[in-house]
Amino acid sequence: MDQTLQQMIAHIQPVSVAVLNRAQAHLDGLTKPPGSLGRLEELGRRYAAIKGLDSPHVGQKAVYVFAADHGVAQQGVSAYPAEVTPQMVLNFLKGGAAINVLARHFGAEVVVVDMGVDHDFGTIPGLVDHKIARGTADISRGPGMTRAQVEQAVQAGMELARQAAESGVDILGTGDMGIGNTTVSVAVIAALAQCPVKAITGRGTGIDDEALQRKIDVVERALQVNRPDAEDPMDVLAKVGGFEIAGIAGFILGSAVARTPVVIDGVISGAGALLAYRMNRAAGDYMFLSHRSQEPAHEVLFKEIDQSPLFDFGMRLGEGTGAVIGMNLLEAGAKIYSEMATFEKAGVSKKK
Amino acid sequence: MDQTLQQMIAHIQPVSVAVLNRAQAHLDGLTKPPGSLGRLEELGRRYAAIKGLDSPHVGQKAVYVFAADHGVAQQGVSAYPAEVTPQMVLNFLKGGAAINVLARHFGAEVVVVDMGVDHDFGTIPGLVDHKIARGTADISRGPGMTRAQVEQAVQAGMELARQAAESGVDILGTGDMGIGNTTVSVAVIAALAQCPVKAITGRGTGIDDEALQRKIDVVERALQVNRPDAEDPMDVLAKVGGFEIAGIAGFILGSAVARTPVVIDGVISGAGALLAYRMNRAAGDYMFLSHRSQEPAHEVLFKEIDQSPLFDFGMRLGEGTGAVIGMNLLEAGAKIYSEMATFEKAGVSKKK
Repeated sequence: MDQTLQQMIAHIQPVSVAVLNRAQAHLDGLTKPPGSLGRLEELGRRYAAIKGLDSPHVGQKAVYVFAADHGVAQQGVSAYPAEVTPQMVLNFLKGGAAINVLARHFGAEVVVVDMGVDHDFGTIPGLVDHKIARGTADISRGPGMTRAQVEQAVQAGMELARQAAESGVDILGTGDMGIGNTTVSVAVIAALAQCPVKAITGRGTGIDDEALQRKIDVVERALQVNRPDAEDPMDVLAKVGGFEIAGIAGFILGSAVARTPVVIDGVISGAGALLAYRMNRAAGDYMFLSHRSQEPAHEVLFKEIDQSPLFDFGMRLGEGTGAVIGMNLLEAGAKIYSEMATFEKAGVSKKK
Repeated sequence: MDQTLQQMIAHIQPVSVAVLNRAQAHLDGLTKPPGSLGRLEELGRRYAAIKGLDSPHVGQKAVYVFAADHGVAQQGVSAYPAEVTPQMVLNFLKGGAAINVLARHFGAEVVVVDMGVDHDFGTIPGLVDHKIARGTADISRGPGMTRAQVEQAVQAGMELARQAAESGVDILGTGDMGIGNTTVSVAVIAALAQCPVKAITGRGTGIDDEALQRKIDVVERALQVNRPDAEDPMDVLAKVGGFEIAGIAGFILGSAVARTPVVIDGVISGAGALLAYRMNRAAGDYMFLSHRSQEPAHEVLFKEIDQSPLFDFGMRLGEGTGAVIGMNLLEAGAKIYSEMATFEKAGVSKKK
């Protein structure tokens, strides 16, 4: 791996348990029975421990939607044609997609990043251009990308997180767009977690039984052809991943480097999160898993990353739609920490 | 029952299934795989069907926190002294409680209603005075209130919902404050659902094993002494309920009369919801259950009302803290319905 990249990843610092305990002690002095706000307290505690116990303020929030195409889409693994990837990118830029509506509602900016869409957008306002290639090669026939490409994609993601944190964004979120990307996510997760493909392959955007069997066959073939090294996340990414997943993994690592909380969307973002976690487990301290999606691979992710998702709305859209809900909840937890009255200040009697 | 009250409750209209189906058809034309937003689509569909398919706009949101005291608190069933009820009412009015922080964050107004707090607040800005008595009588020795009192409390709640809807509030929410009110909620739920007290009694604000056993004994005694009629919700309310629960039940009925969605908080609000549901099942069409609390009685409520809660954050605070999260999610669902682009408009290809 590139030396600078390796050093930056190695440099991620875990969040101190002592600081987390001090944050909880503050929460226990607020006018509510201790622990009675459940996971909102967990969010407040973790947020304060990451951002500083004295000023866990939330300013801006931003969700980054990483888009790319996948050579493997030509194997008929999705319910939608590949042209939908660039069409949806344009929909994001016009503000008409689900992620736009939800990000507006939950108070997050949407940043759309072209990591490798198979379309020439030209210069288009609002689109961040990190296109590495017009889609990956078909992973069922060989590696999706070269090692150089994957490192470039991870670095691009890291740099975006660094810039965002520097410009004052307090909560980051991840999202994805790419026809065929549940297929490559399953391949990445199966390779890293060493679990059977069939058990974790789902219907993505809504494929029928025949396409589901094809999807399973394609992922199994991809793993046989490429033999990714489970101990080397970059190798897994290069051989069976995708440009948007590499960008997301880098973005999460960059968030951790910048000590900025990052809220993870569904199973595609989750594949990026597991990759980041395997590169440095300390990155997990900055990750907040938002929702349990309907994709079966998600359960494996929660176990591997050792975190429970916040909620389960039966969602399976991606784009960052779960992340922005989670980002807003994280902000709520931060406000509980910083805005509630103490028993003393409010003159409320404590527990008998 | 009072004739006018009975007529108003009987007048509640169910939400049309045909209209719900038309709302879902609209959602299926938006740029996302059909059904991929899961419960957000359910919220959008129900909201649009209630408010009108052409203009399901969300203006104001307001959560009503109903406060009262309980004679049964003197039996040592809570971890906090009864004086905490008025202290917390003052905390609400000063804006320092969890509900204030969360309501500000999620964009809802907080209205605090004194239904029967055992304290003379005098005239105090911001407090809505519907005090019926300074707390109920001890339900373990006899009825908590008279039939006239309970009808007065239900009517007050209904009237508050009517006024709120008339003044332009689009989403209502329920909350509670009252030391001892998980005890009376368990009594109400056990009476209505005819289930064993022990199985559904929890630790409320955090009592120890000894107090838990005392709480179970107290509820069992209350049911034996009062013999509430499971077929008559007003009788159950009067004998083993509380003033805030009666206010909440009325508020939910009033929301349904005014065809306004009402988001239900935890187990105390849930007891009010079950009472309302038993008075007219059509009221269920306007209820949105927000969260699964840690109180075991909650599972019985979901089954009886035949709805699943939206989320489970391990919360057990009350005050409407779960409701305001749910109200914000309901607004998100409404915006998905009204703000997303269609496949046609965005030029996105449909499913193959």
